[in-house]
Amino acid sequence: MPKSREIHLVQRPTGAPTPENFALVEREVGDAADGQVLVQNLLMSVDPAMRPRLTAGQALDEPMMGGAIGRVVQSRLDGYAAGDLVSHRQGFREYFTSDGKGLNKLSPDPDLPLSVHMHALGGTGFTAYGGLLHIGQLKDGEQVFVSTAAGAVGSVAAQIAKLKGCYVVGSTGADDKAAWLRDEIGLDAVINYKVQPIRQALEEATPKGLDVYFDNVGGDHLEAALRRMNTLGRIPVCGFISGYNSGHSNVGNLSNIIYSRVMLRGFVAPDFMHLWGDFLRDMAGWLKDGKVKYQETVRDGIAAAPAALIGLMAGENSGKMLVKLAE
Amino acid sequence: MPKSREIHLVQRPTGAPTPENFALVEREVGDAADGQVLVQNLLMSVDPAMRPRLTAGQALDEPMMGGAIGRVVQSRLDGYAAGDLVSHRQGFREYFTSDGKGLNKLSPDPDLPLSVHMHALGGTGFTAYGGLLHIGQLKDGEQVFVSTAAGAVGSVAAQIAKLKGCYVVGSTGADDKAAWLRDEIGLDAVINYKVQPIRQALEEATPKGLDVYFDNVGGDHLEAALRRMNTLGRIPVCGFISGYNSGHSNVGNLSNIIYSRVMLRGFVAPDFMHLWGDFLRDMAGWLKDGKVKYQETVRDGIAAAPAALIGLMAGENSGKMLVKLAE
Repeated sequence: MPKSREIHLVQRPTGAPTPENFALVEREVGDAADGQVLVQNLLMSVDPAMRPRLTAGQALDEPMMGGAIGRVVQSRLDGYAAGDLVSHRQGFREYFTSDGKGLNKLSPDPDLPLSVHMHALGGTGFTAYGGLLHIGQLKDGEQVFVSTAAGAVGSVAAQIAKLKGCYVVGSTGADDKAAWLRDEIGLDAVINYKVQPIRQALEEATPKGLDVYFDNVGGDHLEAALRRMNTLGRIPVCGFISGYNSGHSNVGNLSNIIYSRVMLRGFVAPDFMHLWGDFLRDMAGWLKDGKVKYQETVRDGIAAAPAALIGLMAGENSGKMLVKLAE
Repeated sequence: MPKSREIHLVQRPTGAPTPENFALVEREVGDAADGQVLVQNLLMSVDPAMRPRLTAGQALDEPMMGGAIGRVVQSRLDGYAAGDLVSHRQGFREYFTSDGKGLNKLSPDPDLPLSVHMHALGGTGFTAYGGLLHIGQLKDGEQVFVSTAAGAVGSVAAQIAKLKGCYVVGSTGADDKAAWLRDEIGLDAVINYKVQPIRQALEEATPKGLDVYFDNVGGDHLEAALRRMNTLGRIPVCGFISGYNSGHSNVGNLSNIIYSRVMLRGFVAPDFMHLWGDFLRDMAGWLKDGKVKYQETVRDGIAAAPAALIGLMAGENSGKMLVKLAE
């Protein structure tokens, strides 16, 4: 009967989250009862979409929810055996029992590290893939801008656009990330928005305007992109990180969408689940061929999870932020 | 060889347009040369989309452009005869010669007044029809909000939504217009935004949220609607009148489109010209059956055109603003 340590949200942040918002709680987890499995988590995801849930959605004094990969260590549930790997939303804890609801069996690709199933070959990569190709209706050779292009979603979106023969501009907030995007990923132009004013830099980087802006930021990035959109351009809106801590994010030139007949569309990955099979095939191939590269920032142990989330909001990560809970 | 009076833009407005921005100019118009027609304008349209063109797009010291219906009074062009009616974009003048480019022959419906071809059965009505059904993908029985619902476009959009069995809320800025929408058009709820704060009033008027917001306004109306959008809601953005005079219009809660996966899409009528035949058939039927009603505000004579445009921006019109130039 293992002890499990888990992270609770104990108070809601106003502005950026702080360590005081979270607590590390230890509790007994029972053995698997009849019809249950006991799961030990191996790896958990830390992602920007968690921030709005801290304000509304995540219950107080309960374990936080989040994507994770675990291993079944006891099974009294048909269809599951000890040793099976499962992906699920019950991260931020070491162990849990489950009746199988919300568990998805994972058959990891033997030629790739397990962790890629938490980002490029998981929900993060799928968000980029469907957001760009389905919501954004990307066509080969178009003019593309991706914000937070060194992040877990943005880096995949930017690379898919490059694979489709597009001219791709990326923004990021640090010189080392900018160098990675330019030198390793081969983007056509890279903007460090903390050094270059985004509006002017984007104008200079997009002599042929923009057909697609993959938006992770909102706010000033979206305003800058709206000035550059070509006729019938598309803006898949994946995130609005500029507003997550403040709760608002002004956009002053939205009327531009009329003159250029631009579409903005908010989305989440479940909107295009019919593409999951295509995605797994395409992305596994790209990863094995080295055509999609990635970075990971891996923190160690459940106690490090709050700091990982706080650090993510401050841009401390390079690529996907993960917490490793067990081998 | 007729003299033609025409309206020139002589200076660009900063803020609301004023009489000083315009000049009435008289000039000789030659007879139709070989390959030309001479057209006398009968009716011209005054519409909100003219305002942004005063800032950029409309040349200075040239006749203003705008939708109009004219009659051919001389023809030396194959396919045209004296007496033919034509619709075109060369309003704001009494006469002009043309080689036929940009002229569309008009076969007015004998059972309807000519003027409806300038609004409900013309580009205005078509904008509402395609914006709601094609861009907005309206489905029968949905929850709908239309801003400037007593205006030329809005009133048609609101009535089409009612014909499709929808629950329809309209906003307007005057009590007499609100009464017309409630008592003549039969909207389910009407908001006078000058009396009722739009955010609270829209919340109270939409207990089942909103599936489609037909946006003519932007700004505070769009913010209020974004708070009420149901999952996978759609916002066809037809106009942004809140920003036309100031040049900007803040929207502070655009991030809502992610959580509800909402689509905003700017559009102009040429985006859905393939629907023109369906539109003419449907709308002519609705007008003859009295299922689509309309109001007109008709000013008299070319000299009244600047005041008509200024008055339109101030909400002086009920329904379509027209200027009658000849019988």
